[in-house]
Amino acid sequence: MVLRSSNIRPDMARLWSSLMRSAEIGRTAKGGLKRLALSEEDGEVRREFVRWCEEAGCTVQVDGIGNIFATRPGSDPDAKAVLVGSHLDTQIKGGRFDGILGVLAGLELVRTLNDHDLTTRRPIVIVDWTNEEGARFEPPMIGSATFTGQKSLDFAYARADKDGVTLGQALDRIGFKGADRLSPDTFDSLFELHIEQGPKLDEAKRQVGIVTGAFSVRGLIVEVRGEVGHVGPTPMPKRKNAIVGAARVTLAIDDIGWSRHETGGKSTTMRLKVEPNLLGILPDLVEMTCDFRHPEAAVASGMLAAFEAAIPEIERRSGCKVTIKEQWSYGGMEYDPGCIALTRDAAEDLGYSTMDLLTEAGHDAMHVADYLPTAMIFTPCEGGLSHNEAENVTLADIEPGVNVLLRSVLNRAGIA
Amino acid sequence: MVLRSSNIRPDMARLWSSLMRSAEIGRTAKGGLKRLALSEEDGEVRREFVRWCEEAGCTVQVDGIGNIFATRPGSDPDAKAVLVGSHLDTQIKGGRFDGILGVLAGLELVRTLNDHDLTTRRPIVIVDWTNEEGARFEPPMIGSATFTGQKSLDFAYARADKDGVTLGQALDRIGFKGADRLSPDTFDSLFELHIEQGPKLDEAKRQVGIVTGAFSVRGLIVEVRGEVGHVGPTPMPKRKNAIVGAARVTLAIDDIGWSRHETGGKSTTMRLKVEPNLLGILPDLVEMTCDFRHPEAAVASGMLAAFEAAIPEIERRSGCKVTIKEQWSYGGMEYDPGCIALTRDAAEDLGYSTMDLLTEAGHDAMHVADYLPTAMIFTPCEGGLSHNEAENVTLADIEPGVNVLLRSVLNRAGIA
Repeated sequence: MVLRSSNIRPDMARLWSSLMRSAEIGRTAKGGLKRLALSEEDGEVRREFVRWCEEAGCTVQVDGIGNIFATRPGSDPDAKAVLVGSHLDTQIKGGRFDGILGVLAGLELVRTLNDHDLTTRRPIVIVDWTNEEGARFEPPMIGSATFTGQKSLDFAYARADKDGVTLGQALDRIGFKGADRLSPDTFDSLFELHIEQGPKLDEAKRQVGIVTGAFSVRGLIVEVRGEVGHVGPTPMPKRKNAIVGAARVTLAIDDIGWSRHETGGKSTTMRLKVEPNLLGILPDLVEMTCDFRHPEAAVASGMLAAFEAAIPEIERRSGCKVTIKEQWSYGGMEYDPGCIALTRDAAEDLGYSTMDLLTEAGHDAMHVADYLPTAMIFTPCEGGLSHNEAENVTLADIEPGVNVLLRSVLNRAGIA
Repeated sequence: MVLRSSNIRPDMARLWSSLMRSAEIGRTAKGGLKRLALSEEDGEVRREFVRWCEEAGCTVQVDGIGNIFATRPGSDPDAKAVLVGSHLDTQIKGGRFDGILGVLAGLELVRTLNDHDLTTRRPIVIVDWTNEEGARFEPPMIGSATFTGQKSLDFAYARADKDGVTLGQALDRIGFKGADRLSPDTFDSLFELHIEQGPKLDEAKRQVGIVTGAFSVRGLIVEVRGEVGHVGPTPMPKRKNAIVGAARVTLAIDDIGWSRHETGGKSTTMRLKVEPNLLGILPDLVEMTCDFRHPEAAVASGMLAAFEAAIPEIERRSGCKVTIKEQWSYGGMEYDPGCIALTRDAAEDLGYSTMDLLTEAGHDAMHVADYLPTAMIFTPCEGGLSHNEAENVTLADIEPGVNVLLRSVLNRAGIA
């Protein structure tokens, strides 16, 4: 049986109520969320989520990195499960929907199946990935990277937050260092519903984003080395002020994004570490975290090359030494055509307006996509604002996406 | 008796040995000093200094802010004392001579008088000012500002370092919160010997800097406010990246210094505080510490005005809001003509080459100059480098300055 013409619908009021309950845990004065990975607040929302899943009849497993898997059994004992989920952690000044919507929509899907007493052929597993944001432990998306084996558990445990607490210690503290061993082999596919975190759907008044792939990202740590000196007597021509060098790097990077922005290019300096960063001293070191993003891998690489070509002039003008100390890249892949077709068909059957999009942010689905057929679905979000306490969606904004998720997953899992 | 033709000379080897002993206390791997105000190391060098002063027959007093005054009595019970000194604290990556030379040259002066069994008419008081650098507690030069009454003891005690330790607590910890009450009324004058911290004497191969006054300094805290957003999906035209705004502020400030550098102008961005300063987030706040310096007060004010005039264009190009949140100014005054004449005459009598200079850094002498006849004497320093572990002078570099200090102070104090 295929559900194309089914009228199974989620209970949007129930989903909204779960979202609003989550929004109380780590709530900020400005109405956003501060729920850093493996913090006390993350522990609290995890316990609430586990309770909800168990009440919905799921069996909960926690793996070594703290990813939570809640399984609703299927009818076929040999069928691999469909994963549905995202993450419950947030940025320091984060919003109430980024990641959370994807997890709680998975829960709502299970609750809806329970309402209708329906059993799918494949099991359905709701997943909450650990430390997606990377706001406490770097790199981000470490839960899914450990699940797929791209990173080792030992590597992950040793990541430390700014206070020196390791990820392993933080897992122990909140009681979420699990013993269950799960890997992509256990699963059939992954569906992740997420707010767009950009303005395209909102501006074009489209209801559902069909995510076909991901932007190419080229990240880098730039080190600007100058020379310590006294702010007072050191004459301008003798200075090597690393903040001045960093300012020239920032504007060179900014220009590279602007000159490609009409084709979707973006460039960012997002983080600076200055030393010694004191009154009266010319600083000798700025470490900068930067990245370039573009829909086309070749253009993303070209942006990085353009920056490299700009370095000698920056060095000449600032007197500083500019070095790319570290580089990384991700994205640039396409999601699974079969899974994408399921989401596109679901939206069409339900009469929703859609837009094809690429993910411009990092998502756990990008890690999993190398191992399992994967799709993402985007909902609009107000003004495209995200990683911001003012991040917002209405129930009407997310209803189409939640329906598309439900229908796609049911079609993938099959009704027994 | 006037000492113009005297051949009283300091024991430079003894002074150098004291400087090298000081250089062991808080020594860094690179051979500089990390001896933050009121740290354990500062406590240790203070105890050594007190021991030396007492061995030299001085009476030591410590005031409420921890300034140390070591008095060698004079012959005239009604005569006010001549102060000679500077500071023993350093920057985080500081050098071995900045401040320290001025204190230990005062000690050498006393030891030399002892060698010759000479009594001056006025008492001579060696002073070590607390927290000159401001590297641990802000503002800098707080010891002299409390001595003169420009700042209250309560204000000073409440200053906190980056770990939240207050200046009052730090004084208690190292046992240097004294009970002695001293004020400018007790004193006749102040002489401060200091390394130049700039390259002029070194480049011109002059032996002694006759300091006639101070640069005018206009300091400011600039706040750049942008908007938090996701680094991935936020299109370039929708961004308000505070780091980009801060880069434009930095270069505008840098340009203002460059365009006045031939007349001695300097402009600096020295410190940045970025929020949230995280991977994946467009930052919404950069707080910048900046200053403008020029020999002429009107030009210094003009540099600040030029920056204010540049703000609207910076805001337009970055999308950020730029505000001057705090402002301060100091310097711009002249030292005492009588004291300056003593230093100039001493240098001439001794046959040293001289150069008239302005202080371009802040010094305790600048606070005291509003209350007492004051002079400063500069020695050359290698390459003008200071506030740097590589700061260096040779014994030959400092010998002329130490002799000029000794002779000027003896002439001011008078021989009984």
